[in-house]
Amino acid sequence: MSKGEKMKIKVGVLGATGSVGQRFVQLLADHPMFELTALAASERSAGKKYKDACYWFQDRDIPENIKDMVVIPTDPKHEEFEDVDIVFSALPSDLAKKFEPEFAKEGKLIFSNASAYRMEEDVPLVIPEVNADHLELIEIQREKRGWDGAIITNPNCSTICAVITLKPIMDKFGLEAVFIATMQAVSGAGYNGVPSMAILDNLIPFIKNEEEKMQTESLKLLGTLKDGKVELANFKISASCNRVAVIDGHTESIFVKTKEGAEPEEIKEVMDKFDPLKDLNLPTYAKPIVIREEIDRPQPRLDRNEGNGMSIVVGRIRKDPIFDVKYTALEHNTIRGAAGASVLNAEYFVKKYI
Amino acid sequence: MSKGEKMKIKVGVLGATGSVGQRFVQLLADHPMFELTALAASERSAGKKYKDACYWFQDRDIPENIKDMVVIPTDPKHEEFEDVDIVFSALPSDLAKKFEPEFAKEGKLIFSNASAYRMEEDVPLVIPEVNADHLELIEIQREKRGWDGAIITNPNCSTICAVITLKPIMDKFGLEAVFIATMQAVSGAGYNGVPSMAILDNLIPFIKNEEEKMQTESLKLLGTLKDGKVELANFKISASCNRVAVIDGHTESIFVKTKEGAEPEEIKEVMDKFDPLKDLNLPTYAKPIVIREEIDRPQPRLDRNEGNGMSIVVGRIRKDPIFDVKYTALEHNTIRGAAGASVLNAEYFVKKYI
Amino acid sequence: MSKGEKMKIKVGVLGATGSVGQRFVQLLADHPMFELTALAASERSAGKKYKDACYWFQDRDIPENIKDMVVIPTDPKHEEFEDVDIVFSALPSDLAKKFEPEFAKEGKLIFSNASAYRMEEDVPLVIPEVNADHLELIEIQREKRGWDGAIITNPNCSTICAVITLKPIMDKFGLEAVFIATMQAVSGAGYNGVPSMAILDNLIPFIKNEEEKMQTESLKLLGTLKDGKVELANFKISASCNRVAVIDGHTESIFVKTKEGAEPEEIKEVMDKFDPLKDLNLPTYAKPIVIREEIDRPQPRLDRNEGNGMSIVVGRIRKDPIFDVKYTALEHNTIRGAAGASVLNAEYFVKKYI
Amino acid sequence: MSKGEKMKIKVGVLGATGSVGQRFVQLLADHPMFELTALAASERSAGKKYKDACYWFQDRDIPENIKDMVVIPTDPKHEEFEDVDIVFSALPSDLAKKFEPEFAKEGKLIFSNASAYRMEEDVPLVIPEVNADHLELIEIQREKRGWDGAIITNPNCSTICAVITLKPIMDKFGLEAVFIATMQAVSGAGYNGVPSMAILDNLIPFIKNEEEKMQTESLKLLGTLKDGKVELANFKISASCNRVAVIDGHTESIFVKTKEGAEPEEIKEVMDKFDPLKDLNLPTYAKPIVIREEIDRPQPRLDRNEGNGMSIVVGRIRKDPIFDVKYTALEHNTIRGAAGASVLNAEYFVKKYI
Repeated sequence: MSKGEKMKIKVGVLGATGSVGQRFVQLLADHPMFELTALAASERSAGKKYKDACYWFQDRDIPENIKDMVVIPTDPKHEEFEDVDIVFSALPSDLAKKFEPEFAKEGKLIFSNASAYRMEEDVPLVIPEVNADHLELIEIQREKRGWDGAIITNPNCSTICAVITLKPIMDKFGLEAVFIATMQAVSGAGYNGVPSMAILDNLIPFIKNEEEKMQTESLKLLGTLKDGKVELANFKISASCNRVAVIDGHTESIFVKTKEGAEPEEIKEVMDKFDPLKDLNLPTYAKPIVIREEIDRPQPRLDRNEGNGMSIVVGRIRKDPIFDVKYTALEHNTIRGAAGASVLNAEYFVKKYI
Repeated sequence: MSKGEKMKIKVGVLGATGSVGQRFVQLLADHPMFELTALAASERSAGKKYKDACYWFQDRDIPENIKDMVVIPTDPKHEEFEDVDIVFSALPSDLAKKFEPEFAKEGKLIFSNASAYRMEEDVPLVIPEVNADHLELIEIQREKRGWDGAIITNPNCSTICAVITLKPIMDKFGLEAVFIATMQAVSGAGYNGVPSMAILDNLIPFIKNEEEKMQTESLKLLGTLKDGKVELANFKISASCNRVAVIDGHTESIFVKTKEGAEPEEIKEVMDKFDPLKDLNLPTYAKPIVIREEIDRPQPRLDRNEGNGMSIVVGRIRKDPIFDVKYTALEHNTIRGAAGASVLNAEYFVKKYI
Repeated sequence: MSKGEKMKIKVGVLGATGSVGQRFVQLLADHPMFELTALAASERSAGKKYKDACYWFQDRDIPENIKDMVVIPTDPKHEEFEDVDIVFSALPSDLAKKFEPEFAKEGKLIFSNASAYRMEEDVPLVIPEVNADHLELIEIQREKRGWDGAIITNPNCSTICAVITLKPIMDKFGLEAVFIATMQAVSGAGYNGVPSMAILDNLIPFIKNEEEKMQTESLKLLGTLKDGKVELANFKISASCNRVAVIDGHTESIFVKTKEGAEPEEIKEVMDKFDPLKDLNLPTYAKPIVIREEIDRPQPRLDRNEGNGMSIVVGRIRKDPIFDVKYTALEHNTIRGAAGASVLNAEYFVKKYI
Repeated sequence: MSKGEKMKIKVGVLGATGSVGQRFVQLLADHPMFELTALAASERSAGKKYKDACYWFQDRDIPENIKDMVVIPTDPKHEEFEDVDIVFSALPSDLAKKFEPEFAKEGKLIFSNASAYRMEEDVPLVIPEVNADHLELIEIQREKRGWDGAIITNPNCSTICAVITLKPIMDKFGLEAVFIATMQAVSGAGYNGVPSMAILDNLIPFIKNEEEKMQTESLKLLGTLKDGKVELANFKISASCNRVAVIDGHTESIFVKTKEGAEPEEIKEVMDKFDPLKDLNLPTYAKPIVIREEIDRPQPRLDRNEGNGMSIVVGRIRKDPIFDVKYTALEHNTIRGAAGASVLNAEYFVKKYI
């Protein structure tokens, strides 16, 4: 893998035409460390220009330098992947299961937003501000699977939102139990995921597998790497997930019981101070938690772009009548909760290991 | 107070032109027990025909027999209130505080949706399926205040939804702690309450005083009347309230810890069997809890009209990783959660006491 | 075909599980003239109970007597179609093209909402208030095609809305030119037709084939049956069609130039008086045009249920600076504009010809 | 008025806290020609920091350098206005009527988005790409009114959208008649202008005075300045205005009859070539018309930010069955249609006259 003052690392995107794929394209089109040279999608799209293959639905047009790039098939042996070192995956889980190992075998580093391998013992599930040290699992993964490359995953969108806010609380006060009720944006389900008939003047109190992901991924993320294994964190967590009529931005009502006991002001303070990677100058990094004092914030339309979509915005930190504290957290689900999470993982990895 | 086979009780509505007032009009325009003869509103509306005084925004037109009724001022001594026995109040809290006692003094029974007197010691706060016996407080109220009439209140919209589902659980298994996150409809804030700029592609994680109401009213409703006083129920409750882009229908994610321990199937069974007033033939009564088995129900647009808007629809009753059970409950907030609640209180009162 | 005081005509629905199919079920489940005995849908649904085959998304639950009916395949020789005389078709156009003739051949009267045969010379395209006499085309159709049954079609949803308002104007003042801009509800595209990502905080200025349908169907509907042929009406019409974030209810801005010249008050008068079938007592019939005087009506959420969804609501009839008059018209697109249109056609046919 | 290589012109905003005022702030906070030094609002706001006085509801936070500026009263003699040369007005019409002359009297150039003086004979109503020469009216205005300053207005939001697309057509083919049906965003009515109850699952077919503005302002804008007077353009125009559930972005269905006759391809060509000010390097200028070829564009959420909100996006240019051509145009109503229009007027004025 080459690196230099002026040399950018060549990267590709799998599933480049979908909801998360488009966000990867936005984040990578003009990236100081990465050069986006390979856009892969389904057979149906392969061979077309990106602008023709993709039903682009972002509120800014396709970056000019990407429009005419030709989409290639999801094949690690395709010539355009040859000098690509890092591959971002926005594949759906079933396709990720099949294709990501093929790319890892070919020596690629896969930074994947897919859920397929997140809970595998030898696959790092990482939020760099939370558990960057879990990246060391790569060595075990490579050895065990005989790959030159590796798969590095980021969590589910709604998990990231909660876990970033829980990390500084856990570090200072310990965690005992957490209840979370989510109100999630429709973009999380992909462009065709939620029919308008299903959400206008309505909400849907169910998102497939979402509660299970939140309840398992959180414990791995906040767990401890010991002797090449992640020991799950030792607290209880329960989620209830809902879909609401919002384009982008997951909002979560969170109730937290700490081990030590904590006052709202103390919680606010540790959240506000939480800024573990600020000295690394990662291009996609922003202050992980931004606190708003207004009584009615955060709100998805107003706050989702905070930190270019990378900051979790927290508000209404207040005393809870049962637990220690309750608060509301908001995340841009297709940036911080998906494409941005993978890109930040890659940036961190490159800075630290390459 | 007169009553007979064919004689209907004359009733009036205070705050008749607003969001809840319009629902009172819909429920009372053709009611088998009540005859709606007095529509009171602000000075600005008084003297006008109802159809001119009121910006009607329901999806069915104003009932024909109401359109041309002349709105009167909120004055218990107005001649049109003379033979009115029951007055329904959709007044905002500050006006309720002032006007409701004046009507009670004049001998009227006020069935009020306002919050002003709900937590007063001598004022019944009643859901008939839950704590009809609290109506006995009226005697104490009358004695203490020297009124011929009385004020009877129903709870806040989001409280009613939760408490109806909690009642059968408490009766069978006891309650220890309850977390609730709400997603509430815009109609709950009145016609001008939520600007479209505030809710399109957005949600608001705050509703003024709502969490406090849920956390206090629930304990009174599920409390025990002893020696002329309500002993508050002895469990813990915490709410986090949100406004979402739904016209009508509050949805609640509820997490419950019982005293005895309970399995989801047991909870479902006691909810489904809960039907305490079915033999009274109250016109507005419907089965209080309707359970849907589909994984993605209840939904506001699809389920809010269940039982003509009087049934709470419950779904997704499932094992909770921390407490015993979690589920989703839905209520038509301006019917079961407001006007319908007051009307049902009145119907019950008439059947039992008159 | 049997008919009697108490004997209902047995009817079936093709495409019974879709958006329009569900409306047919609502309209026919408790119909005074028809008994709904056959529900046909795709092979995938056949054999299942209706409640299991159908993703029901109306704001009232499936009628009780329909829930457990078993869905059958779209096969005119299926035994459940044997004593069915009338078949309502909610098939998509390509399937309608194939299946409707098969049913007509078996002697069924097809009342079809599909576009497949609307513009065929020998197929009546009918709104009973507008051109009931075109039903005489059936004789020609039967002769020409050798069918015992027949296909009778109703127009496209947005066409119906406009044409009903144009008919009384044409009869009195003649028509020269009509511009129409539509704002159409998402239900018109079927449950999965419009993704929420496409319509939240957005609109789509295009609906496939819609403008063409409005521009051709209108001329046939308002044309004259002469010597067994429909002579197209002789005026010009142009449409621009848009999809907006409304569940049900198409709204149209209409600009009209008459032949004779007409004042807004005259237009209002002929519209208001237009009630050609009022003496027939057709169960689904309602006054075809209801005029609202308020400056900001009609509105879809408030007015779509007028006449149980069968009345076109017209407002803002005013002088036009270029043509004679402009106004706004609203139609419940899945009732008056689809299922209700077919059912009304059938009711009229039965009253007149059987 | 001072000007220099590095010297920026000091500017102020009237009505700085409202919907259009916030857009002025966004456009001026970091402007290469202007320095925003005075933020005026109502007495209630005066004296507070902008961040406290203003309920900011844009999807990016208040610019850092503006947050702590202290709001002043709307008083041209306030010391902070002393060295301000240009004042942008986002006042409501009644306040504009009163205050704008007071500022003009004090020598300020008022670039106003208010409708109060738009149709006055001696007040320029200007879109710089369309009728920049009308700015010469200032001389007559100053003489007639005895002002050192002047009032320069831009048109109503929906007028701008239509007129920019009509200008190149008129120049090449002449205009005979134009029909326009609008679908306008809620932001156009101000933050509290449209209640959510009024627009969720709904639309409103009426906007006060909007049609009148479109029908009169267009003729002045496209009129000819002769002997110090604007001769109104000589074509007919009719508008029908609707409010829809969109945050930002007015969409218009437009039907055009030219004098000479024109094919869609010719219309597209003159629109696409229309770029009259491209050589002036005005900071807020963008290509006035951007044409999209996709069948379903423009769409408000996807296209409103084109040209940083300053380009009108046109699509679906097609043959009209009655007139020559019909098409769809989209405008960011609070940028191109309001604040951006005023700022562009000021930029043009400074470049040309100062």
